Amino acid sequence: MTEATRRNLVVEHINRRIQSRTLGPGDKLPSVRGLAATLQVSASTVVEAYDVLVAEGIIWARRGSGFFVADRAQPFAVSQTGPQLEREVDSLWVARQSIDAENDVTKPGCGWLPSDWMPVDALRRAMRQVARASSAVLTDYGNAQGHLELRHLIARKLHDQAIEAGPDCILLTNSGSQALDLVCRLLLSPGDTVLVDDPCYFNFHALLRAHQIKIVSVPFTPKGPNLAALEDILKDQRPRLYLTNSALHNPTGATLSATTAHRVLSLAETHDLIIVEDAIFAEFEPTLSPRLAALDGHNRVLTIGSYSKTLSASLRCGHIVARRDWIEALTDLQVATNFGGPSPMVSEVLHTALTDGGYRKHMEALISRLDRRRSQMTRELGALGLKPWVKPRGGFYLWCEFPNQIDAASVARRSLTRGAVFAPGNVFSASQSMSSFMRFNVSQLESGHLKLLGELIKAGDTADRT
Amino acid sequence: MTEATRRNLVVEHINRRIQSRTLGPGDKLPSVRGLAATLQVSASTVVEAYDVLVAEGIIWARRGSGFFVADRAQPFAVSQTGPQLEREVDSLWVARQSIDAENDVTKPGCGWLPSDWMPVDALRRAMRQVARASSAVLTDYGNAQGHLELRHLIARKLHDQAIEAGPDCILLTNSGSQALDLVCRLLLSPGDTVLVDDPCYFNFHALLRAHQIKIVSVPFTPKGPNLAALEDILKDQRPRLYLTNSALHNPTGATLSATTAHRVLSLAETHDLIIVEDAIFAEFEPTLSPRLAALDGHNRVLTIGSYSKTLSASLRCGHIVARRDWIEALTDLQVATNFGGPSPMVSEVLHTALTDGGYRKHMEALISRLDRRRSQMTRELGALGLKPWVKPRGGFYLWCEFPNQIDAASVARRSLTRGAVFAPGNVFSASQSMSSFMRFNVSQLESGHLKLLGELIKAGDTADRT
Repeated sequence: MTEATRRNLVVEHINRRIQSRTLGPGDKLPSVRGLAATLQVSASTVVEAYDVLVAEGIIWARRGSGFFVADRAQPFAVSQTGPQLEREVDSLWVARQSIDAENDVTKPGCGWLPSDWMPVDALRRAMRQVARASSAVLTDYGNAQGHLELRHLIARKLHDQAIEAGPDCILLTNSGSQALDLVCRLLLSPGDTVLVDDPCYFNFHALLRAHQIKIVSVPFTPKGPNLAALEDILKDQRPRLYLTNSALHNPTGATLSATTAHRVLSLAETHDLIIVEDAIFAEFEPTLSPRLAALDGHNRVLTIGSYSKTLSASLRCGHIVARRDWIEALTDLQVATNFGGPSPMVSEVLHTALTDGGYRKHMEALISRLDRRRSQMTRELGALGLKPWVKPRGGFYLWCEFPNQIDAASVARRSLTRGAVFAPGNVFSASQSMSSFMRFNVSQLESGHLKLLGELIKAGDTADRT
Repeated sequence: MTEATRRNLVVEHINRRIQSRTLGPGDKLPSVRGLAATLQVSASTVVEAYDVLVAEGIIWARRGSGFFVADRAQPFAVSQTGPQLEREVDSLWVARQSIDAENDVTKPGCGWLPSDWMPVDALRRAMRQVARASSAVLTDYGNAQGHLELRHLIARKLHDQAIEAGPDCILLTNSGSQALDLVCRLLLSPGDTVLVDDPCYFNFHALLRAHQIKIVSVPFTPKGPNLAALEDILKDQRPRLYLTNSALHNPTGATLSATTAHRVLSLAETHDLIIVEDAIFAEFEPTLSPRLAALDGHNRVLTIGSYSKTLSASLRCGHIVARRDWIEALTDLQVATNFGGPSPMVSEVLHTALTDGGYRKHMEALISRLDRRRSQMTRELGALGLKPWVKPRGGFYLWCEFPNQIDAASVARRSLTRGAVFAPGNVFSASQSMSSFMRFNVSQLESGHLKLLGELIKAGDTADRT
């Protein structure tokens, strides 16, 4: 029997006595020597077991007098959160439902890949390697701007995307969302106007609302924002900032054309507009698409990115790329509000996993797998009358319109009672004009979902006719 | 020779050819088979080596055509940041100087323990254990409120501190600072007035300024805030919130008395004041001190905590304890602005390290070690004419006054040129009335610092006399 097994037996013995109430709250535990003799184990085994029970809050130690049963010795029942059916279907709805879904709930509307599509072995290797890193990496606050080698690596990856920026122009953050949050804090004041695409990533709405920002939206076309509408809005509403996705647009999967990119930037110069380019899906591109930061050289464009979609969302590390003076001010802001950026230990794990020779192969395999999956799901959704608005070049989203003006929010609400979280169109739409659209994550979409959609479409059909 | 060694030799071979310019930017690399034959290694070794070079950004792959030297094949020079001597000595000064200090700079003014005082072996064990966790822990976004078992554990630890709060009333955050940041976002608007202690933790000033909050301060006594002054301020300035430290006050190390705690809470009730109690040093207490949350039951008090000081600042995980409805709103805010809280992987490492039987022993040893160190440093600083304002019951701070009204900011500025970051009094003081005080971290204070202080005090003395 191993030492750990012997220790666990002592822990169980005490837990049983507490459960059977032969030891009650406040009672003194047997002495270490006494229990060691009773159970025929060494005193050090009992000491270790008592330490575990103290750490778990089951018992406590009074220096010099021994160990006592805690007042609240029974562990709390682990509560089940379950789906919140009554909550309004707004821009936080998909986020909270997806994040907090229980294990038996599926998430064809969520914004990430299933964990078995991710390079888990590389992450495990990286963690074991970082477990041997210097003590400082494991215990200290890191550099305020973030892990230097990781910033160098990001700079090289940006260079491969035709974007030039040194590590001094990069700030690591806790996430892509927090990167945007810091940008809003630096560049905006409550009451300012910000322009977003219609549709756009739903959390942009929630985040801007948290900053008390006035949101205006520009209709999005398969080649980027509608330029005539953009010009009118810039003249009439004078937004301070335009927040958009480049590389692969969320939720549509569309790609900015070179002409549109150039024109957007010219308009931004004329109207003194700052642009935040969220390029979180850039690594999913099969070939490079026009990037505003590549044209502008981070003069009035800021880039946001993260490896949450390609490597791990559990690590929590994003980044902002911007002018050196803005990065310095953003760094101060992050120190003031978070005493620094992402975990240095996590940054080291991320850097290790990204420089593992396997990351490129993982991305190539992922891109191919998603290509096949998008084609298959386009066919299967098409058979139900759901047609993608564009054919995306990459990524895991399909933005589809329901037949017969079926209300996607109602489909989402009904699906939640059947254990599936969908992402209905209007959570992506500031104008609330996308009620019959839905964003599908092809990597999470299963045959059961297609069957459920078929049923709900049919029911909607009938409802319309009666 | 191992496979890894052979791969590294191929990597070195290519790097040498790039450095010697026999391979230039854009050049095609030798074919995998060709190089394998030349170097007498297997093709798979060359493929692995090329993958490493791609991951490092030295070369890139064009699908179907082979590998090419990147345009910017030379790795960036790693820049040295060095101390920023010219920066104003304000509330961000100590933070940035301490966080960004190079390895040869010492930090007797910083707010953390040296890494060799921390339970590094327990952290390494926890990381190795979590490296074997389920894939979902390593790749997925976690529960929006944060790791459930960790919240249970925090609830049990709070119970041991006479504070009752279930895991539903706890939100995990990226840090103690971010916990406070979220509270400010929820409960305050720009222009609101917030009350802090004079002196108080310097980053409170920076954080509140980031929220455009008007800061007022109440003189702090060895038993808590000056009650007469507090009452006057509540009547005249009507602050919405009072932000204070309980358990062990930062920077003074003082402890709130029971009488003062009760009176503060009565005044808060009369004047409808919300109290945020930052109890980040609670685990360093030798015995329990009065806690506002224990008296109030989290009606108008919110508690903030973290394990940055006792376990690791690298993990980045703090928490807020508050009323259930506030926690729900804070969770939404954290999703909107950060798409969730701390890294689920990190939360798992933290939970594992805290429930390791060794944590209690680590804290007992740490408390004893700090007791001895505070006594020793009190004597040695006293010999230089620096006397602690109070004798703290625990923790690692001593708040001392210089003799002869020597200006602590000037000492700090001069010390920085000698490679030591000190924390001068006025960065802790909203009223700027603490110019001859300094906060010392006894765990970081070395004999060289005492010698340097002796010299500067002597020089200051002479300067006064001439």
